[in-house]
Amino acid sequence: MNYMLKDENAIYYECGYSCDNALYLRLGADAFFITDGRYTIDAKENVVGAAVVIDGDLYGKAAKILKKHQVKKIVFDPKEWSVAGFDKIRQKVKTTFKPVLDFSHKKRIVKSEEELKIVAKAAKLGAKAFKQLAKEFRKNGFGKDEYTLTHMAKGILGDFGKYELSFEPIVAINKNAAKPHATPTSTILEKNDLLLVDAGLKYKRYCSDRTRTVQADKYFMFDMHQSYKRKKIQKAYDVVLKAHDNAIAKACSGMKAKKVDALTRDIVEKAGYGKYYVHSTGHGVGLDIHEMPYISKKSDTIIEDGMVYTIEPGIYIPNAFGIRIEDMVAMVDGKAKVL
Amino acid sequence: MNYMLKDENAIYYECGYSCDNALYLRLGADAFFITDGRYTIDAKENVVGAAVVIDGDLYGKAAKILKKHQVKKIVFDPKEWSVAGFDKIRQKVKTTFKPVLDFSHKKRIVKSEEELKIVAKAAKLGAKAFKQLAKEFRKNGFGKDEYTLTHMAKGILGDFGKYELSFEPIVAINKNAAKPHATPTSTILEKNDLLLVDAGLKYKRYCSDRTRTVQADKYFMFDMHQSYKRKKIQKAYDVVLKAHDNAIAKACSGMKAKKVDALTRDIVEKAGYGKYYVHSTGHGVGLDIHEMPYISKKSDTIIEDGMVYTIEPGIYIPNAFGIRIEDMVAMVDGKAKVL
Repeated sequence: MNYMLKDENAIYYECGYSCDNALYLRLGADAFFITDGRYTIDAKENVVGAAVVIDGDLYGKAAKILKKHQVKKIVFDPKEWSVAGFDKIRQKVKTTFKPVLDFSHKKRIVKSEEELKIVAKAAKLGAKAFKQLAKEFRKNGFGKDEYTLTHMAKGILGDFGKYELSFEPIVAINKNAAKPHATPTSTILEKNDLLLVDAGLKYKRYCSDRTRTVQADKYFMFDMHQSYKRKKIQKAYDVVLKAHDNAIAKACSGMKAKKVDALTRDIVEKAGYGKYYVHSTGHGVGLDIHEMPYISKKSDTIIEDGMVYTIEPGIYIPNAFGIRIEDMVAMVDGKAKVL
Repeated sequence: MNYMLKDENAIYYECGYSCDNALYLRLGADAFFITDGRYTIDAKENVVGAAVVIDGDLYGKAAKILKKHQVKKIVFDPKEWSVAGFDKIRQKVKTTFKPVLDFSHKKRIVKSEEELKIVAKAAKLGAKAFKQLAKEFRKNGFGKDEYTLTHMAKGILGDFGKYELSFEPIVAINKNAAKPHATPTSTILEKNDLLLVDAGLKYKRYCSDRTRTVQADKYFMFDMHQSYKRKKIQKAYDVVLKAHDNAIAKACSGMKAKKVDALTRDIVEKAGYGKYYVHSTGHGVGLDIHEMPYISKKSDTIIEDGMVYTIEPGIYIPNAFGIRIEDMVAMVDGKAKVL
C-alpha cells in the first residue's frame, strides 16, 4: 500500500520521529522521511524504517520520488494537506491521489502493547500532578483568580517545562465550570468554592487527560469522593459519578461506542439532567488529545481491546455550576481498565 | 473583487472578529461571515461590515452563497485552505478559484493609523514586561533552570493570563543562547551568566516582539548598554549593537528590504562574524508574529511608510554563546521609529 503523510503525529507514528517541516512517503516496502537541512542530524539519529532525504524543497522532492518509483496510486488524508502543498506534488506527477479521511487516526485506533505502556505512564504522571496541584492550591491558591490558578496548573502539570501539556488546562470556579470549555476569568478562589480542573500532560508524546470537580475546602484533594455543602451540587455530582462508574464497569470489547455513550447518558437522563449533559461521553487519546474512537451517541465504532479513550460525563447548569469527572481507560481482556 | 478566507487573523483583519470555526467571503460590495451556532452571539455582536451566517456545514453554505451570487471567479490563498475544506466548496460550484499566495499578508503589509497605535501599545507593554521580568529574575531567578525561568517569563509577559503571548518565549543561558531558536534545558542561571530573552505579548490581537541579551549580574536590567566581564562576549555584543543601531538609523522608506538587511549584515561581516549571523535581519509583525515585509538578503520588497518590522541582528558562536538584540520599528515619515 502507498500513502503520504504530512501531520506531525501521523509521521511520528510511522517512524518514531517528526519535526515541523517534514513529509513521509510509504511506497510498498519502501519509506521516505523528507525534511530540510536543519533536521539532518536529528532525523538520521531517530527515524526508524525510512530513508532520510534532505531537500530544501520538500514537495518537489516528494514528486520526484513518486515519479522515480512510478507510483500509480497513493492514499492521503485531505485534512492533513494544504491546497498549496498538495498541488505542488500533484501538478508534477501522473499519480492518482486517493483521499481517505482520518487515514492515520484509523490506523492508530488500536494501541500496541508498547503504546499502552506509554499512555498508562502518561496517565499516571497526570494523576500525580493533580495530587501536587491540590497541595499547591491548598497552600497558595485561595485568593487567586482563575488566570493565576491556570498559570500555576500549567507549571505543575508540565513539571515546569519537563513535560509538554496535552492542551491548555481548564481551571474553573463555581458557575464558570458550567461551560465545558471554560476560559479563565478574574473570579477568585474562595474556601468551599466548587473547583473544576481538566488537564493533561504528554509523556513520550502520548497525552494524558483527566478532570476532577471538587469542593475546595481546607483539606481538599482531587479525589472522586466529595461532600458538597450545597445539596443541589451534591445531587448532580452523585449522578455524574454514578454515570462515570457505570460506564467503566460495563464497557466491554465488542460493544458499539454509542452503547458506551448510553452507559453514562441513560443515568444522567433518568436523573432528569439530560439537557444539561451537552457533550459526548468521551474520545480516544493517544498522540493526539482527541482521536478515535469517539464515544458519542452516533458512533457505530466497535470497541476493541487496545483502544484507549476517556469516560467524562458532565452536568452543566448555566449560571450556577458545572460538574465533570474524567478518567482514561484502556480496553484490556474485554474490559475497561482505568489508567 | 471576490475573495475567500479561512485563516483566523486574515478574517479578523476584514471584519474585527474571528473564531476557530469560520469562513469569510467577500463578493464585490457584499461580505459574509459564516460560522456555527456556538458563535452566534459573539459573531453578531462583533462582526463589522459582513452578514453573519450561521450554519453547521460551513463549506456547504459557502458553496451555496457562491452559487446564489453566480460568482465566476474568486481569489483564495492555497496555504490557508486544507484540501478537504477547499474541495467541499469547489466540487459544488462552477466558480474559478484563483490561487494567490499570501493574499491576506500582502493586504496587511502597510498598517493603518489605528493598527500602528495598537501595535505601538503592544510593543510598549512588551517593554514594560521586560522591566518587570528583570526585577523578578534578579529576585527569584538565580539558581533556577531555564524551564522554570521560561515559566516565570510566561507568567509575567502575559500578566498571568491578561494577555496572550506572541509565541513561546526563549530564555537561554550562555552557550544555549547560541541556538537562535533555543528550547529550555536544565541549565541553571548563575550570577554573571549571559542571559538572552526573546519574548512578546499580544494586545488587541497585535503582537509585540523583543530580544535582549544581558549579563545577569546583581543589578541587571534588560537594557542595551551591557558591560560583560568576558571580552569575547563584549566584542561580539558591541558589533551586534552597532548593526542594530545602524539599521534603525539608516533604514528609510523607498529602500529595498534587502538593503535594510545589508545595514546590519555588512557591519557583522566586516567585523569578521559573518558566518555566525545565521538568519535574516527581521520580519514584519502584526496580527501574525511573522508576516511581511521580510528583511532578508533576497527580499526586493520596497519599504514603505506604515510598515512594521523587527531589526534583530545576532551572532551565534556554537558551544560558546549567542547574542541577539531585537526591536520593532514602524516606518513613519520615511524613517524607522522604534516602538
